[in-house]
Amino acid sequence: MFGDVAMGSYRFLFDLALILLSTKLLGMLTRKVNMPQVVGALLAGLILGPACFNILQETEFFSQLSEIGVIILMFTAGIETNVKELGRCGKASMIIATIGVIVPLIGGTLLGHFSSVGGKNLMENIFIGVVLTATSVSITVETLKEMGKLNTKVSNTILGAAIIDDVLGIVILTIVSSLADSSVNVGIILLKIFLFFIFAGVVGIIFFKLFKLWFENSNKDLRRYVIVAFVFCLLLSFSAEEFFGVADITGSFLAGLILSGTKKSHYIAARFDTLSYLFLSPIFFASVGISATIDGMNGAIILFAVLLVIIAVLSKIVGCYLGARMCGFNNKEGMQIGVGMVSRGEVALIVAKKGQAMGLVSNILFAPIILMVVITTVVAPILLKIAFRDKNNPSPTPEERNPLEDIVLDPYDGTVVK
Amino acid sequence: MFGDVAMGSYRFLFDLALILLSTKLLGMLTRKVNMPQVVGALLAGLILGPACFNILQETEFFSQLSEIGVIILMFTAGIETNVKELGRCGKASMIIATIGVIVPLIGGTLLGHFSSVGGKNLMENIFIGVVLTATSVSITVETLKEMGKLNTKVSNTILGAAIIDDVLGIVILTIVSSLADSSVNVGIILLKIFLFFIFAGVVGIIFFKLFKLWFENSNKDLRRYVIVAFVFCLLLSFSAEEFFGVADITGSFLAGLILSGTKKSHYIAARFDTLSYLFLSPIFFASVGISATIDGMNGAIILFAVLLVIIAVLSKIVGCYLGARMCGFNNKEGMQIGVGMVSRGEVALIVAKKGQAMGLVSNILFAPIILMVVITTVVAPILLKIAFRDKNNPSPTPEERNPLEDIVLDPYDGTVVK
Repeated sequence: MFGDVAMGSYRFLFDLALILLSTKLLGMLTRKVNMPQVVGALLAGLILGPACFNILQETEFFSQLSEIGVIILMFTAGIETNVKELGRCGKASMIIATIGVIVPLIGGTLLGHFSSVGGKNLMENIFIGVVLTATSVSITVETLKEMGKLNTKVSNTILGAAIIDDVLGIVILTIVSSLADSSVNVGIILLKIFLFFIFAGVVGIIFFKLFKLWFENSNKDLRRYVIVAFVFCLLLSFSAEEFFGVADITGSFLAGLILSGTKKSHYIAARFDTLSYLFLSPIFFASVGISATIDGMNGAIILFAVLLVIIAVLSKIVGCYLGARMCGFNNKEGMQIGVGMVSRGEVALIVAKKGQAMGLVSNILFAPIILMVVITTVVAPILLKIAFRDKNNPSPTPEERNPLEDIVLDPYDGTVVK
Repeated sequence: MFGDVAMGSYRFLFDLALILLSTKLLGMLTRKVNMPQVVGALLAGLILGPACFNILQETEFFSQLSEIGVIILMFTAGIETNVKELGRCGKASMIIATIGVIVPLIGGTLLGHFSSVGGKNLMENIFIGVVLTATSVSITVETLKEMGKLNTKVSNTILGAAIIDDVLGIVILTIVSSLADSSVNVGIILLKIFLFFIFAGVVGIIFFKLFKLWFENSNKDLRRYVIVAFVFCLLLSFSAEEFFGVADITGSFLAGLILSGTKKSHYIAARFDTLSYLFLSPIFFASVGISATIDGMNGAIILFAVLLVIIAVLSKIVGCYLGARMCGFNNKEGMQIGVGMVSRGEVALIVAKKGQAMGLVSNILFAPIILMVVITTVVAPILLKIAFRDKNNPSPTPEERNPLEDIVLDPYDGTVVK
């Protein structure tokens, strides 16, 4: 084992340097043209991977690191979820999120079913739908901020729906990925999922109480709390996979949710943020790009990609529009909310990668999925600006913009840059 | 490759959780009894590894991560080296460090030569000496601080000598490890080392100028600078091994030294500090403990361990005492300086691990080396208190202590906790 290093195989150092440099450079480039850095990171993987120059290949080392990277991405997403806000979001956000998840789920499944490059069975087709469910709201927030529309009723509804959207996405992923193993009885699988949530709830409450007690009675070296939080996240992720057949990222997301209620959740999140951007996130996003293959790329795949993009955009708009109208929003507001939920981001990629690991998403689908993420991201701000266009007041005044200019969102991982 | 994860092998998540938790818990425990946390981390590895319960084994994943961990430890050591201070340390520190490195080097080599469990050839014996060279000064600084003696002439000399000591240790390691491959001509090896330093110097100056130009003309998102610094460190480490046959940690230490002159070196070091304590350092120190084996532990090994500890303590005291006396320090001051340089820490372990990777240090020597690190660490503060004992003023007044109480050194990685 160690002999590998002993024999002078220091190639992984070079590979790591290449991943960090290329994802950052291309990320800065895509940022320049108002696209999130994650698009650049994906492109870096595509260009350096087998799809293009074949300089980087997936090794066990990098695939395990990217697994830890995803766990931490979902963990911080959980920590930064404001559970209280989730309660306040109200019925409207809940209904919009639910219909906005169901329509793309059905749309993706139907595409998989009718396309010749779709899945070989129902589960694989449903997985294409699952990839389309989760919204990435960071690009929308930035666009709304730019237009001075961030504290409106519509934008608050979008933010609320996006949070619920994430939770629903995780629930659906949990169920679908658990059902993937067709050798096991469906009833037992659903029981195991149920037991996992009970387990996570009980363990979570105990951990939360102990953690609060320990944390809030001490202001010593904060490092130990960050490490304990990490250990809790890893153990819940491991238990999910090992004992309940549930996806590890479900465990890490729940661990994050549990910790989100503690006083120092921002401190903990900031530390994991460093670990993410400096080491693990670039590896994860590059590995998604590396997974894409263009061998056997043909007319059917291209058609599939085009349809996937169209369904991704339309199904989200339609679903959220319907939900919004049901909740009493007018036609224009319904369109604004629908358009605000269009962009997909890291969660779609995380789900796709998870599907690959379970044998439910073949590498040939990665290029279309990456295309879908990139296009929905590019299209969202354009559609938003159109949907918010006001004949009487065509452009926002600087006064409207200013109050929120001090909030900076990093779209690379969707966190607020403090 | 990825199939490994696909097939449900999530064991590495559990192993990681176990490493993080056990190193932290035992680290806090050793901290309670006034020993550095690194001792606890080593013990965690020993207890969980093959030497004891055999729950953790070294895998390629963890050995490559621990390699990156060492690279970052040496990189931050480099960044935090005050190059200007190095110049100001003056002749005294230089002479003390040099003799204080030569005597343990010879002592360790002789022990290896005469002991039945020593190396099979000259290089392996010299390597035992190399392990004994580098001082870990953090425990000394804490003890001096506690005694209110931190800003004395003696303590400044110790700090200066310890910095030079690190640089000399790296130079010796570079030469010895390069010479290890006996199939290559010695002249060529020395030429390659020389060329590497030229290469690092030229690349370093160019990088330093560009980095300063770029950094000091921008106050945008600082993350990119941290990533670029990391890439530079990785590439210099990789080049050292790949093109010059020089240890990767020499490259990363030099990369750190080069960056130490930039304005934001503290910012960069703090980010790597997070990456270290939260993820990579625990893996490295646990892996040292895991490397230790007690199979075939016999009288000869125990005798070797005892002699190694005695030589480690005495050779450092004698070498530094001689150097101090040569520089005009009196007898008592000479003893204080000698005693202040006794404790060994992470660098000894890094060197030992490097030796293992090159086949120069067998696993059977790890237990004695760990014992040496632990004992020198335990003994140093005791000896320091004796050496500083003042008949007229047996204990420091609180006034003497206060001014420096706000500086907190983390002995786990020897950095100042900001």
